[in-house]
Amino acid sequence: MAANRKILLAKRPVGMITEDCFSIVEEPMPEPGEGEAILKVEYFSLDPTIRGWLRDEPSYLPPVGIGDVVRSAGVGRVVASNNDALPVGSAMSGLTGWQEYAVVGGPNGVLAQPVADGIDLVDAVSVFGVTGITAYFGVTDVGNLAAGETMVVSGAAGAVGSVAGQIGKILGAHVIGIAGSDDKCAWVVDDLGFDACINYKTQDVAKALHEACPNGVDVYFDNVGGEILDAALTMMNMFGRIVACGMISQYNDTEPPPGPRNLNRIVVQRLRMQGFIILDYLMRFQEAIDQLGTWAGEGKLQNRVEMVEGLENTPRAINMLFTGGNTGKLVVRV
Amino acid sequence: MAANRKILLAKRPVGMITEDCFSIVEEPMPEPGEGEAILKVEYFSLDPTIRGWLRDEPSYLPPVGIGDVVRSAGVGRVVASNNDALPVGSAMSGLTGWQEYAVVGGPNGVLAQPVADGIDLVDAVSVFGVTGITAYFGVTDVGNLAAGETMVVSGAAGAVGSVAGQIGKILGAHVIGIAGSDDKCAWVVDDLGFDACINYKTQDVAKALHEACPNGVDVYFDNVGGEILDAALTMMNMFGRIVACGMISQYNDTEPPPGPRNLNRIVVQRLRMQGFIILDYLMRFQEAIDQLGTWAGEGKLQNRVEMVEGLENTPRAINMLFTGGNTGKLVVRV
Repeated sequence: MAANRKILLAKRPVGMITEDCFSIVEEPMPEPGEGEAILKVEYFSLDPTIRGWLRDEPSYLPPVGIGDVVRSAGVGRVVASNNDALPVGSAMSGLTGWQEYAVVGGPNGVLAQPVADGIDLVDAVSVFGVTGITAYFGVTDVGNLAAGETMVVSGAAGAVGSVAGQIGKILGAHVIGIAGSDDKCAWVVDDLGFDACINYKTQDVAKALHEACPNGVDVYFDNVGGEILDAALTMMNMFGRIVACGMISQYNDTEPPPGPRNLNRIVVQRLRMQGFIILDYLMRFQEAIDQLGTWAGEGKLQNRVEMVEGLENTPRAINMLFTGGNTGKLVVRV
Repeated sequence: MAANRKILLAKRPVGMITEDCFSIVEEPMPEPGEGEAILKVEYFSLDPTIRGWLRDEPSYLPPVGIGDVVRSAGVGRVVASNNDALPVGSAMSGLTGWQEYAVVGGPNGVLAQPVADGIDLVDAVSVFGVTGITAYFGVTDVGNLAAGETMVVSGAAGAVGSVAGQIGKILGAHVIGIAGSDDKCAWVVDDLGFDACINYKTQDVAKALHEACPNGVDVYFDNVGGEILDAALTMMNMFGRIVACGMISQYNDTEPPPGPRNLNRIVVQRLRMQGFIILDYLMRFQEAIDQLGTWAGEGKLQNRVEMVEGLENTPRAINMLFTGGNTGKLVVRV
């Protein structure tokens, strides 16, 4: 019988994640109960939001409990099934967690949905997974971006930001990225077609935004919060929208840092700052996947994956999200 | 010929407004040019937003220039006219400024509109003026408040806040005020019908909100920003709305203070924080005035005015807005 290796939360991180926060255990592969199927997890996704789930604080999902498998989006194929709707061989994506086998289906299965035929599993956990879907609804539904407008994207070389900016270009906007290295900026501009990209580690962001956005900013797609949000606030046009997708700059802080000084721009410029969590769009996922698939098929959407090899390397790899270690989507090949 | 006394901006305030920022001059009453009428200003309105107009900074209206009449909403009657649509005796409200006579009509007249028949001029500059209209659109259009929801209003004993809370009660919401004295809190609860009111000067606002809002907060109508906004953020329900009407706590600051530490709640709770300026609703003013008039006629809407007697006392009175000196609407009887 195959073993199921899984990574449990051993203790809660304080500040940056350390490897001793996790333990790897080996158990027998689970047997499918009534209505259940067993998914062999082939890839899972490392996302900044996982850091929030490791805190013992109320959030949009319950905290990961001590001794529980760490929560994560992932994708795989059914290898055993007691559910006719989930036949062996079928591909599913969902909240598999950091483990080799996950139970899907039935009341105790993890939240999961079928992967459409013809979709590569790596794509299903990145550009056609929560990453791409988040970018899609963030730009279109929350940001309401229109052709000819200017959109600024922070975390531009990250998983969501890189797709959000490409969608902005597809929709006919002027798109400026903000990223943490010259290499990332070059990728975003040269390969993804952003109009410009600001290296926040070497440039004065407010000044650089002023130069790169002669018509001001209509949509700020915020993945980082903090000082970059503060700088973006000063650039917002009347009736501008701030898509509050994430605030990665403070995910490892033990105390929440002071907020942006320029928040009064929200009143004066009649801004709308709106948070969203992609799970709220679950019923509309297919719309996003279809549109993203069309764009990808037309060669308009690039997907870059930074692959971590092996479940056991996950605890070491997760901090790449916070140290700027990855470009594009960080994925673990189980 | 009558004289026109007017108050000019002599120098820009730094921090709190001082009386030497203004000078009173006396000029001949203006003569109406072609298409113009002369409005004898009977009352004008003192509003926190005036502090912003005195700064030499881009805002939703240009700064008041040094040597210019201080901008203010006001109301009065036409005493001389070269415009058949603005006959002598007709009542007008608009941006009269701090002066005894204002030019209305024609390309150089101030922004003004007729006051409907039967409306008292004091009401026209308060509950049926920008104050009430701001509260109306803030609660209904920006806040989208529904019956059964909980709304928290800061600056609850101020001009806009006191009307906003009453509208909340009319719409069937649970309404909690935040104000700066026990007397103000008592007025808001006993006379206006708020469900509770927190004295932010003597109570721990976060703790008191927690007790007063057992179902959390769906709409936070924010007139003050700063620490009270920070406390309110921690109470917001999923998909809650923050009506960013004003941030009076920082209007006299020489440097913008740090923002709220709990801004990440916007992402986690999918909040919408939206600023608005009532001038954007100019085309819908009549809808608000009609509805407010209906409610007032039904005895559901109370209007309290703190009257300042005499134009010359305006420079001394304006700081009442920032020191908590007024309850209800601060109006100058010219």
